[in-house]
Amino acid sequence: MTEITESLRTRVEHFFRKLQDEITATLEVLDGSKFFQETWERPGGGGGRSRILTEGSIFEKAGVNFSAVHGAVPDGMKNGADDLTFFATGTSLVLHPRSPKIPTVHANFRYFEQSNGDAWFGGGMDLTPYYLDEEDAIHFHSLLKTACDKHDGNYYPRFKKWCDEYFYIKHRGESRGIGGIFFDYLGGTLREREETFAFVQDAAHAFLPAYVPIVEKHRAEAFSEEEKRWQLLRRGRYVEFNLVYDRGTRFGLETNGRIESILMSLPTMARWEYDAQPALGSPEERLVNVLKFPREWALKL
Amino acid sequence: MTEITESLRTRVEHFFRKLQDEITATLEVLDGSKFFQETWERPGGGGGRSRILTEGSIFEKAGVNFSAVHGAVPDGMKNGADDLTFFATGTSLVLHPRSPKIPTVHANFRYFEQSNGDAWFGGGMDLTPYYLDEEDAIHFHSLLKTACDKHDGNYYPRFKKWCDEYFYIKHRGESRGIGGIFFDYLGGTLREREETFAFVQDAAHAFLPAYVPIVEKHRAEAFSEEEKRWQLLRRGRYVEFNLVYDRGTRFGLETNGRIESILMSLPTMARWEYDAQPALGSPEERLVNVLKFPREWALKL
Repeated sequence: MTEITESLRTRVEHFFRKLQDEITATLEVLDGSKFFQETWERPGGGGGRSRILTEGSIFEKAGVNFSAVHGAVPDGMKNGADDLTFFATGTSLVLHPRSPKIPTVHANFRYFEQSNGDAWFGGGMDLTPYYLDEEDAIHFHSLLKTACDKHDGNYYPRFKKWCDEYFYIKHRGESRGIGGIFFDYLGGTLREREETFAFVQDAAHAFLPAYVPIVEKHRAEAFSEEEKRWQLLRRGRYVEFNLVYDRGTRFGLETNGRIESILMSLPTMARWEYDAQPALGSPEERLVNVLKFPREWALKL
Repeated sequence: MTEITESLRTRVEHFFRKLQDEITATLEVLDGSKFFQETWERPGGGGGRSRILTEGSIFEKAGVNFSAVHGAVPDGMKNGADDLTFFATGTSLVLHPRSPKIPTVHANFRYFEQSNGDAWFGGGMDLTPYYLDEEDAIHFHSLLKTACDKHDGNYYPRFKKWCDEYFYIKHRGESRGIGGIFFDYLGGTLREREETFAFVQDAAHAFLPAYVPIVEKHRAEAFSEEEKRWQLLRRGRYVEFNLVYDRGTRFGLETNGRIESILMSLPTMARWEYDAQPALGSPEERLVNVLKFPREWALKL
């Protein structure tokens, strides 16, 4: 491992740690509640800080994790190399608001490095509204597009499509939400990695401006029992996606990961009803139509 | 296909259809509510009757499915034979009571036949209490043991162990419930299949006597908000098992099965809290201890 690579690794870890601090500090002000922190160590090397806020004024459950772990590459990922070691660091979050008028949001940024020199970034963020507000969708996607365009004009269209494909609940024929960006295996030469790191920092810094104004806009809106029920049904879909398809979740479950951190993404409550269909022409149906047929949201600037 | 095989198939299908009738009729009397029925056809051949009771006096969600389907064997299951067809019939049920004092129960009996002559039975039933009542566990298991022992002294110990292994939530280090019996691939010669069918009928007829007295015993018991919360947390585990591990569910999701029938097994509501641990020495902990270390329950008669 060269001096310069270690320096990138150190800077990336530092950035992700600070990102967790910035995001949780902002959310604490927004919600008026405090995160509870649990630090943990990974038996094979490294550890993390899980921060969780529950029963807040805005957030029913908000989890923001940071981790930096290292050790031997698990057997299934080795491809023949025997003494391969890895280093992985990242920050991931899922915020589930109480109100069905405020969307759930997920974001994740990570860096992975192997002792054979391979290294890459992955991540993204995506929005899961319970009711469609087109202005919100445009705001969220346009900020992501701006962060992408600064680095590569192909990033946004490519990562937006990747996001729609990744967060697809095949057995429902629906996306989990209205998307955002998703990318993985962005690596290459050391120089390319430095450029990717610059992009990852801009994308990560877009998170709060992309999401917080949406919370502020809807936080005072009233909602009915029926709207809450709809939120819980949609949270059932969130659980279905995470347990059936999400690669990170499934990898964690299969490799004896830290269960409480892995399943922190699940909502406090979820609901399943037999064949629950939204009424024709209802706001609920309007959301489902967008989940079945993803749209372009970003403003063409 | 010989005359005699068709006759077994017809009798098995008839038995499973009648089993659904018997079980739903008894549950309707018990609950005082009616099942809603939806019949459906499978595009590739055959169909079924889904019966669902929701918001009953005892059952929050009770689903009892019957199906008899046939057609070409899916590509992934063919093993090289090109024009293989199959016939499958079965009855399966999951009953989720409102009260945390009444256990959830699952039962499933099925028969599968292929045009190459292979045929087998599978099935079983298992109990998922929210609070441990040892008398209930003994009653449930002893009735199953009696049904098994009538046919083969090895059945109960073998199928009890198989059940404990099958309904194991690996990432939690816990069983889904206190078990019961589980068996699969019981086939063999036509004569052996006839014997297995006799066993399956006895096991299926043990369902109502094994479960209904447990409902009757606990139906009038009061429960607190905290006990309801515990039930919802345990239902989160039920969802985890079904979406992550259950072979039938995963097969159905991967092969474009009828989603509403497949996911009928999920509870109406489920809950996830970060690192929720039962208090030392509490009734909740007493249940978890039994889930971590399965016990022998059947009376040695």
